[in-house]
Amino acid sequence: MPVLNLRSNDADPDDLDTLMRDIGRRARKAARAMALASAETKDTALRAVAERIRASAAAILRENARDVSAAKAAGQTSALIDRLTLDEARLSGIADAVEKIGALPDPVGRQIAAFERPNGLLIERVAVPLGVVGVIFESRPNVTADAGALCLKAGNAAILRAGSDSFRTALAIAAAMGEGLASAGLPADAVQLVPTRDRAAVGLMLAGLDGCVDVIVPRGGRSLVERVQAEAKVPVFAHLDGICHVYVAKAADLDMARTLLLNSKLRRTGICGAAETLLVDRACADTHLAPLVTALLDAGCAVRGDAAVQAADPRVTAATDQDWRTEYLDAIISARVVDGLDAAIEHIETNGSHHTDAIVTDDSEEAARFLAEVDSAIVTHNASTQFADGGEFGFGAEIGIATGRMHARGPVGVEQLTTFKYRVHGSGQIRPV
Amino acid sequence: MPVLNLRSNDADPDDLDTLMRDIGRRARKAARAMALASAETKDTALRAVAERIRASAAAILRENARDVSAAKAAGQTSALIDRLTLDEARLSGIADAVEKIGALPDPVGRQIAAFERPNGLLIERVAVPLGVVGVIFESRPNVTADAGALCLKAGNAAILRAGSDSFRTALAIAAAMGEGLASAGLPADAVQLVPTRDRAAVGLMLAGLDGCVDVIVPRGGRSLVERVQAEAKVPVFAHLDGICHVYVAKAADLDMARTLLLNSKLRRTGICGAAETLLVDRACADTHLAPLVTALLDAGCAVRGDAAVQAADPRVTAATDQDWRTEYLDAIISARVVDGLDAAIEHIETNGSHHTDAIVTDDSEEAARFLAEVDSAIVTHNASTQFADGGEFGFGAEIGIATGRMHARGPVGVEQLTTFKYRVHGSGQIRPV
Repeated sequence: MPVLNLRSNDADPDDLDTLMRDIGRRARKAARAMALASAETKDTALRAVAERIRASAAAILRENARDVSAAKAAGQTSALIDRLTLDEARLSGIADAVEKIGALPDPVGRQIAAFERPNGLLIERVAVPLGVVGVIFESRPNVTADAGALCLKAGNAAILRAGSDSFRTALAIAAAMGEGLASAGLPADAVQLVPTRDRAAVGLMLAGLDGCVDVIVPRGGRSLVERVQAEAKVPVFAHLDGICHVYVAKAADLDMARTLLLNSKLRRTGICGAAETLLVDRACADTHLAPLVTALLDAGCAVRGDAAVQAADPRVTAATDQDWRTEYLDAIISARVVDGLDAAIEHIETNGSHHTDAIVTDDSEEAARFLAEVDSAIVTHNASTQFADGGEFGFGAEIGIATGRMHARGPVGVEQLTTFKYRVHGSGQIRPV
Repeated sequence: MPVLNLRSNDADPDDLDTLMRDIGRRARKAARAMALASAETKDTALRAVAERIRASAAAILRENARDVSAAKAAGQTSALIDRLTLDEARLSGIADAVEKIGALPDPVGRQIAAFERPNGLLIERVAVPLGVVGVIFESRPNVTADAGALCLKAGNAAILRAGSDSFRTALAIAAAMGEGLASAGLPADAVQLVPTRDRAAVGLMLAGLDGCVDVIVPRGGRSLVERVQAEAKVPVFAHLDGICHVYVAKAADLDMARTLLLNSKLRRTGICGAAETLLVDRACADTHLAPLVTALLDAGCAVRGDAAVQAADPRVTAATDQDWRTEYLDAIISARVVDGLDAAIEHIETNGSHHTDAIVTDDSEEAARFLAEVDSAIVTHNASTQFADGGEFGFGAEIGIATGRMHARGPVGVEQLTTFKYRVHGSGQIRPV
């Protein structure tokens, strides 16, 4: 078991700097070993990690109980305490998820492209690990195992920074993971949990630890993501908002539109792929608007609308400009009537967050234009926005959803946690002058 | 022709800020139009751009003559003045290059992946433009046209910032490009040259112009790249150094090793793919070292070596630790004997720049290990390091070579100037609870 230099909340800044640089150096070294590990070794290691988590259940649940007590004593919300609390079943689910990630196809070593040049050179583009992934999260203790396992599967090393509330639990899970790695002959340092609650550690991670962090993944609420995006000196995979739209076009089947809208908004309201705004084509407002709005209201969803939407049902309240840019993450939706496809696209491009947007229509040409012109990571035609999820995409699992344009966009699974290199195979070729 | 607000060198900071934000907003708007342009429209536009450059030859050469005069008056080096100077033939070459880029396959709209899910959803990953590319360059006026055309071909808008020396020439070329775009019905704003020499404009670009710059590409010397990498708040495609190695293993054919080494080092010494360090396996030093070192020296290359290399030829001078980390970009090479493959890899990982590294060997297992374990953008087996070039890779052209790990690695051609989105095609699917 790796020695964890447990630290108080108010560390000396120089000490913290030394500690974090050391973590970075050890992660870089571990990443080199992970990059060369075979698929079999990584799978064996992840099975061993899952087993060690199960075998350490008593210790992990004991540490979790201490986190939960402290959170209660600090007056945290019941929602946070629920996210934080582990029991045997949840812990077993965490171990199962690690095993499932281990069973995914190895994303490293895939030949992404290959071409032979006229001079006989064979050039391959091959997937290789990204390197060191920094994960900064809040109160969900399962992120330690989930995010750690995804990084490991892709041949990376992970530096995990837990929120203060889940700190003890995360430390216990990370210790079990390190033991599992070591038992399979891989470096325990490939998963390191930052062993201090000192908030300054986050700033040091965002600065890149002397080039020892290749990418940062924030897992948490808006304020965390906002800070990470503002301060990070290294690339970030994240989304700030999920302001997802459902556009019901004139050629939409009303029943399908109603079903997709209710699922997009209400299946789960707290996830980033939940719809936040309904746009209805003026050309079908007479027939479609009232039934859609009534269905939402009857299902317990508050509706904030423009004048036309307010006229459709007396329970609708007035939307302000701010509503079009709000991610409610709750049973609330903003709704307006728009003048056809161009106006819908304009609304989405002006107010959206480039996450996931849907069109409902039976007109395939209109659908094609929507899918081409809406500049979001995910665009759907006649499908719920709540499919915005790595599992639903068949990626097995995801570390998050990215709305940036670089490298990873949409669900970030193990493939997106790799990069590539070129291997050039020659037989003595030189470049002509 | 777009109105160019030509500005003095010392602009009011508020004015500059307003100017640059406006450039950013116009670029973002132009990028939306470019993203939707068909392959045919883009090709027509690039042919029109080439024609306008040819038709504007008199004006461009006149502005170039002013730049050259000013550079001479300022006492610039003859190398810089040579890079800066255009004549009819060079300008014709610039127009030809634009046409060649126009004729490349369209990188936008490619289906990169497609998968059907058990619920019948068809998910496609499709290439889309990156958005707005900021290019910061120095004295080569051809970069305006080359980099601009590459960005346009990939459906992006470009904001170009020319060095002070090539400012007037770049402005004239960019004006011709804008006319060509407009004549094909595309926005002239898709190529904007920053119309001021004020150096503060670079800082504003690096800060991202309110989210209106998606990536920065510096084209120039080490100090430019270093500043860009240190200050940029947006992603950067670049390489700081090209400290490329040739490792001659014990199973190397001596003749092949000599040919590859001379080409890697001396074909052109000033490019980033030129070799800077020779590593020779101790197991073949008796037979291979002296002939290789002598061949370099006889070809006019200075050799700085360790004790073993110094013993091979009296003309060798002593290498210092600094030599192993120096990109000479000149007819100088550092050379040392290493204890086999592991020591060679360790030397490269410790001192290299993750650009391009080569092994010469007839042992395919040893080659495979080198290609796997050397963590560089390009690794070659029995091929010159000078193949590190987008043209040689068959990309048609490149905007530069990247050694970062995100998104683009190695030569950055039009494909690397795109990102992707997911298009999800459904028939009413909802996500189960």
